[in-house]
Amino acid sequence: MDYQSYFLSNKDKHLQELGQLISIPSISALSEHKSDMNRAAEWVADSLHRAGMEQVEIYPTDGHPIVYGEHVHAPGKPTVLVYGHYDVQPVDPLELWESPPFEPTIRDNKLFARGATDDKGQIFLHIKAAEALLQLDKELPVNLKFCIEGEEEVTSPNLPFFLTEHQDKLAADVVLISDTALLEPGKPAICTGLRGLCSLEVSVRTANTDLHSGTYGGGVPNSLHVLVDLLASLHDKQGRVAVEGFYEGVPEMTDLIRDEIEKLQFSEEGLKQTLALDTLYGEEGFGFIARTGVRPTLELNGVYGGFQGEGTKTVIPKEAHAKITCRLVGDQDPQDVLDKIEAHLQSRLLPGAKLEVKQLERARAFTIDPSDPMLQKAADAYEKVYGTRALFTKDGGSIPIVETLSRVLKAPAVMMGFGLPNENLHAPNEHFHLENFDKGLLTIVEYLKSL
Amino acid sequence: MDYQSYFLSNKDKHLQELGQLISIPSISALSEHKSDMNRAAEWVADSLHRAGMEQVEIYPTDGHPIVYGEHVHAPGKPTVLVYGHYDVQPVDPLELWESPPFEPTIRDNKLFARGATDDKGQIFLHIKAAEALLQLDKELPVNLKFCIEGEEEVTSPNLPFFLTEHQDKLAADVVLISDTALLEPGKPAICTGLRGLCSLEVSVRTANTDLHSGTYGGGVPNSLHVLVDLLASLHDKQGRVAVEGFYEGVPEMTDLIRDEIEKLQFSEEGLKQTLALDTLYGEEGFGFIARTGVRPTLELNGVYGGFQGEGTKTVIPKEAHAKITCRLVGDQDPQDVLDKIEAHLQSRLLPGAKLEVKQLERARAFTIDPSDPMLQKAADAYEKVYGTRALFTKDGGSIPIVETLSRVLKAPAVMMGFGLPNENLHAPNEHFHLENFDKGLLTIVEYLKSL
Repeated sequence: MDYQSYFLSNKDKHLQELGQLISIPSISALSEHKSDMNRAAEWVADSLHRAGMEQVEIYPTDGHPIVYGEHVHAPGKPTVLVYGHYDVQPVDPLELWESPPFEPTIRDNKLFARGATDDKGQIFLHIKAAEALLQLDKELPVNLKFCIEGEEEVTSPNLPFFLTEHQDKLAADVVLISDTALLEPGKPAICTGLRGLCSLEVSVRTANTDLHSGTYGGGVPNSLHVLVDLLASLHDKQGRVAVEGFYEGVPEMTDLIRDEIEKLQFSEEGLKQTLALDTLYGEEGFGFIARTGVRPTLELNGVYGGFQGEGTKTVIPKEAHAKITCRLVGDQDPQDVLDKIEAHLQSRLLPGAKLEVKQLERARAFTIDPSDPMLQKAADAYEKVYGTRALFTKDGGSIPIVETLSRVLKAPAVMMGFGLPNENLHAPNEHFHLENFDKGLLTIVEYLKSL
Repeated sequence: MDYQSYFLSNKDKHLQELGQLISIPSISALSEHKSDMNRAAEWVADSLHRAGMEQVEIYPTDGHPIVYGEHVHAPGKPTVLVYGHYDVQPVDPLELWESPPFEPTIRDNKLFARGATDDKGQIFLHIKAAEALLQLDKELPVNLKFCIEGEEEVTSPNLPFFLTEHQDKLAADVVLISDTALLEPGKPAICTGLRGLCSLEVSVRTANTDLHSGTYGGGVPNSLHVLVDLLASLHDKQGRVAVEGFYEGVPEMTDLIRDEIEKLQFSEEGLKQTLALDTLYGEEGFGFIARTGVRPTLELNGVYGGFQGEGTKTVIPKEAHAKITCRLVGDQDPQDVLDKIEAHLQSRLLPGAKLEVKQLERARAFTIDPSDPMLQKAADAYEKVYGTRALFTKDGGSIPIVETLSRVLKAPAVMMGFGLPNENLHAPNEHFHLENFDKGLLTIVEYLKSL
């Protein structure tokens, strides 16, 4: 039986199994899901075990556990470490989901659910590819290791310690990660760059109590006025980040980068249509691919304060909050960027308000040279399955641990993604196109065999 | 028995009765409290009836009902119409209440509960004053009418129709309202001016779905950036409202007004201490009393969009919202102000965003000449009870219906308030100081007898 027939005849069973994992609401950011995190880790461990992995173990951490498993019986062959994550993003606003986020539903050949593509669906491909190889060939063409964590969506605070502590066990010639996307349907891509990330929470406080806007309005500081003034000051009229020194360490745009972007033939018109936008928006002088691939950004992810209910409430709220993340490129230092933003905010606070800044995550940007043979072979594997050789792209997202994995394990990181750009990651109606579920299994098999 | 002894010996019974009314969560802004609104109206009607009022009736409206009752057996004497409201503000944030908002609790001689001072406690004083007069004197010194509505906190959308329709029944020589505050403990005040009000809801929408801030960040419009840019543009660096034409119709500051303010001997230091503020803030060139009494203002009451939960969510939200109210003075036209704000927002919307503005309430400012004999007699009544003659003040708040009542019924409106400025109206831990509960009853009796 060839692999295509094998995967086809097992497809229903596989999707049912994946459905079990997806049904566990393993939201790492919300502490009430602690027991779901453990259930998801156990499910992954069982699944690795059933696939034929050995030494399967759940390692507790100060946060959520890490699942490990290996099959290392291919002397002389390279060792591949598959990294992925079983945790998912929160699901609000819940009312915008067309089917419940933790009830996997197939519509239009797409699997809808939180985690369908990011990243439960994609780690599942690697487990089932390994299982298939052991079923059909009775052996693996490489030494294979799995390291599946539960804190990727909260920037992997505990994985770096685990990597350093278990450096020998995890040693590999290549780190294989499926947590990125094709360029568009039928056009595979291998990500050779990820932006770094830093994040912060900003709180503004004024009086010691909420005040009536009739009695006090106009005469006391309003925390919301102070906050929107601060937040609006973070960008200038050209869409640039207005924090002094923010762009330190950002590489110049070169002709080479311009050429690479040109080659992608990306359609901004198509994107505008998909998102129902009259126009895109961003830093003046750059297109969408440059803005999201090689330029840094500062985004407001949440702003809130005062009355949010039905109707009117004439209140001057005593506090207001914002959540901010930056995407970083080149040599931008996350700590330095956080400090500069904090100083910027502090310097222009309106009278009568107190500012509190909580610095949260910090991760550097990552890049890899596309000429690395481990990447070239990955591009070949895509070509065999998709009929099109993968392009080398830079992704605007951050998988902070990629830079750490590559540095600690001294191995190239191959980002072999099977998602699509519009699959609503981190948003309502996340989904995974099943065409790439099928082709992903085959591409992984091809790749492992080619090494 | 004199009135003081009567009220003292009935105090416990009165407070228990008031507690029943306060326990009904009659929040007019929230539709799920519809049945509570009806219960509160019935309670008020019963209470008027028990006090000796006649023709007691609950008038349904398109919103919440209006309660009417009268006792008109004093030919040749003036007719007093008592206006008040049985509806209350929402109670969030609930976690900041020291005792549950609808469980009246006495601490430190203060009655804590939503509506304790605004306005259930104060309408109750008028009902019990009338009851006492009928009990002790067997007659009323005036013709008395009650008109108690349930939509004051949502700007009385239905009362104007009711007033016009029942103009003859409601005809009066003076409209008496207790919904304002003393200047400070022991220093009574009669409000001769109220600011007008207009309000709006602003929504900004960008893409048709929430987007991942990694993949899209920097390359698409962010509804939160657009919103904070709009909101920050509403004020200039001098704390003035930056909407063109906003100040049209605002009276010039005169020496007379400056003198009146001077007479109040208001302590900004004391206010700063009470509110734990380093400094007050507002329009440059004015003090607190002018800023809140004779100047208009634009306040953000709520701003929200994107992620508000625990931790980080790397999302670019597709929509963001704000709730805004303005306080108006002099001849400012609420409709004109709303239109100007909408035009201002529309004119500076960042690319890629759509703006939706919902215009909500509209009420003109109100003023009355302090030399009116109805006001002078009220100041005398205060003096008899408090030992200090009431000052004539201007309040920053809005009771939109006061202007309408006075205009439709062609009668002066006497705002005889018994609250205190720091009783947390519209905020957690609203309360009513019981010293003014006691003195309020006596002052009302004195006033009615003096007419």
